[in-house]
Amino acid sequence: MEIIKTIEELKKYRKTTEGKVGFVPTMGHLHDGHLSLMKAAREECNNVIVSIFVNPTQFGPNEDLDAYPRDFERDKRLCEGGSVDCIFYPDVDEMYPREELTIVRVERITQKLCGKTRPTHFQGVTTVVAKLFNIVQPDIAYFGQKDLQQSIVIKRMAEDLNMDIKIKVCPIVREKDGLAMSSRNSYLKENERKAAPVLYESLQKAKGLFEKGENNADKIKETIRNNIEDKVKKEIGNIDYIEIFDTENIDDVKKIKKGNAIALAVFIGKARLIDNIIL
Amino acid sequence: MEIIKTIEELKKYRKTTEGKVGFVPTMGHLHDGHLSLMKAAREECNNVIVSIFVNPTQFGPNEDLDAYPRDFERDKRLCEGGSVDCIFYPDVDEMYPREELTIVRVERITQKLCGKTRPTHFQGVTTVVAKLFNIVQPDIAYFGQKDLQQSIVIKRMAEDLNMDIKIKVCPIVREKDGLAMSSRNSYLKENERKAAPVLYESLQKAKGLFEKGENNADKIKETIRNNIEDKVKKEIGNIDYIEIFDTENIDDVKKIKKGNAIALAVFIGKARLIDNIIL
Repeated sequence: MEIIKTIEELKKYRKTTEGKVGFVPTMGHLHDGHLSLMKAAREECNNVIVSIFVNPTQFGPNEDLDAYPRDFERDKRLCEGGSVDCIFYPDVDEMYPREELTIVRVERITQKLCGKTRPTHFQGVTTVVAKLFNIVQPDIAYFGQKDLQQSIVIKRMAEDLNMDIKIKVCPIVREKDGLAMSSRNSYLKENERKAAPVLYESLQKAKGLFEKGENNADKIKETIRNNIEDKVKKEIGNIDYIEIFDTENIDDVKKIKKGNAIALAVFIGKARLIDNIIL
Repeated sequence: MEIIKTIEELKKYRKTTEGKVGFVPTMGHLHDGHLSLMKAAREECNNVIVSIFVNPTQFGPNEDLDAYPRDFERDKRLCEGGSVDCIFYPDVDEMYPREELTIVRVERITQKLCGKTRPTHFQGVTTVVAKLFNIVQPDIAYFGQKDLQQSIVIKRMAEDLNMDIKIKVCPIVREKDGLAMSSRNSYLKENERKAAPVLYESLQKAKGLFEKGENNADKIKETIRNNIEDKVKKEIGNIDYIEIFDTENIDDVKKIKKGNAIALAVFIGKARLIDNIIL
């Protein structure tokens, strides 16, 4: 497995690869969710490149950039275990050697859901992903459905800008109790961790109602809200949003159809947890 | 010579090319300036692709999108004469099949010079050029120094986003009397056309002063302003800007150094003419 820290070396390496290149962009602190993306890439591609880069431009001024968990030695072992061919592990100066004037922004759909609480987040994501795509030049890039809005935004960017890259979205990987895997779960204290599966549980409840014929979005949101407020004490958590929408334009729906998504974000302790389900 | 109208066909064609691909993006109505770019591409590359696309998103609401001169049959003959391998000639629906949510923007340096009068112009340019780069995937792309700010902005975009494309800027091609070639020169009436070489003449005068030791930017700008106002009657023309700046950050300079640029824009009749010189 190659470990490459500079853009120039990565571009050189890329000239030696043959066949399809699969790319898994990550911020490190890998978990089974990331491993499932590597596995999907391994199955479809001749060469698998994982990037590990905690991108400062996607964190807001009061967010957790400094606290974000990092453990490269552990990540390296996990990549080796996942038969990854190459880790791209640049530092911040390598990715942003001077004032970055260029921004890639997706309008409208980035202002909803997480974009309301994190107004500059997606612009940081799309810009760094565009940079990484140009550096790695993959055939297929893999993203997790856990960050559903992110995957919709990146798909849109790739299509709008005519990028020659297929975007694949892989299913959410969960802990045994249903909590969606996330690097930010490490922020949770014991009692918070116990409360955290309420996101998934509420989504399952909503799904059950929809399958029994309930298609009123407000009613379903109300059920989710009540379920969370019942189970999470105000001292440890509060709801950021619960939204039901179509997965292309992230437009609110009033009458739910198959293929619509329910997404939610809940602050629990120091973590802001997100989860979603496509009906 | 191939004429290709769809993105899918162009991507297919691109898989059949061998060696270096040179790309000349244009809005058509080709003149000797464009031909010099094709010639430079022909000399350096195995394959030369010219795009002809009058990009609506780089025109402001009150600008000349509808009036912009178009003559594809003439352009085709000129490309054939220039030994171009392929013309990419998409229509607007091909390039923008639905609401375009994604924007590529270069901050700060796009708000100066022409950006003051044309605030959304460069965002339209960088977005369409990023799209064209992703479609054509050239090794080298050729731009004219006549649009100096555009070439600085595009270079910056390519560098910031780590695009694997070399940007080459070719010298301005001029009419015998010094007027920089431009598709918009066709808007000029006879008396306006006679006045138009004043841009070049003023730049030459400024260059002469600088070479004689004058490095005060305000004095040089004043000389240019006086020269233009002497020779162009108020009824047919007025100055948009005269600026002296460094060519990386487009920052104003007070004391001129070698390598700085002087650029100006003058409305003459219905045309907004631009010209520049690098000292």
